[in-house]
Amino acid sequence: MKIQFDDNYFMKKAIDEAKIALSKGEVPVGAVIVADNKIIARAHNMVESLNDVTAHAEILAITSASNHIGGKYLKNCSMYVTLEPCQMCAGALYWARISNLYFGASDPKRGYQVLGTVLHPKTKVSAGILKHECKELLDKFFISRRSLN
Amino acid sequence: MKIQFDDNYFMKKAIDEAKIALSKGEVPVGAVIVADNKIIARAHNMVESLNDVTAHAEILAITSASNHIGGKYLKNCSMYVTLEPCQMCAGALYWARISNLYFGASDPKRGYQVLGTVLHPKTKVSAGILKHECKELLDKFFISRRSLN
Repeated sequence: MKIQFDDNYFMKKAIDEAKIALSKGEVPVGAVIVADNKIIARAHNMVESLNDVTAHAEILAITSASNHIGGKYLKNCSMYVTLEPCQMCAGALYWARISNLYFGASDPKRGYQVLGTVLHPKTKVSAGILKHECKELLDKFFISRRSLN
Repeated sequence: MKIQFDDNYFMKKAIDEAKIALSKGEVPVGAVIVADNKIIARAHNMVESLNDVTAHAEILAITSASNHIGGKYLKNCSMYVTLEPCQMCAGALYWARISNLYFGASDPKRGYQVLGTVLHPKTKVSAGILKHECKELLDKFFISRRSLN
């Protein structure tokens, strides 16, 4: 019997990625990409490790998923990401034509929604999945950073 | 005596990159990043070659320039790119805090300006450098693609 995993299950896997980022001193954001009820890519923010602003979890996950699929479009795929994507990542999701975007915490300052970035018209968005757990990690990170300064 | 190169010179180098993309069957877009009157990164669109929507010339050039500098911010750098950046690439330039963005041809459909993407407030933008040469390459590509279908 094939087990059907739910949205919370996949978001927890994205949170696991965010925790890896946190352990490396990165802003804790994690993402997984799912196709046919299976995780085909997982990634966490690596901006500091790679010294590269483009190394957001979503960008790395898109590259990894495309590599897995052998194609550039993620049409029957879903992304679960712990934080609302920024302009850059939403722009990448637009090009990838991803079917579903699920995000946890909102980003009222630099999230794509407030800045008006356009997703592909076929992308369905669900916000707020396990948002407290996702936000808690981010708060923990920024509080620890403030105490260092 | 140190030769000071001008904007046309650097845009021509970006056009050279776009021509390499064209020769590979890619949408012909090229970019260079300049610091202190020297090219520190050059890249062309590789979306088809890499099967990856994130492999735009600008993203590849930012990664390359950051690697060269050993830092994630491109504060005293200028990007010359043959086509107006999309949302994704403008979002990446926002994070990189690039000082100057020079682009050739405009993209009234998918360019960052019409879609409202926000660049960093310190980024100065100049549009239209060698725009005819930049656009000519793109037109050539799309005409050849149409004749194949």
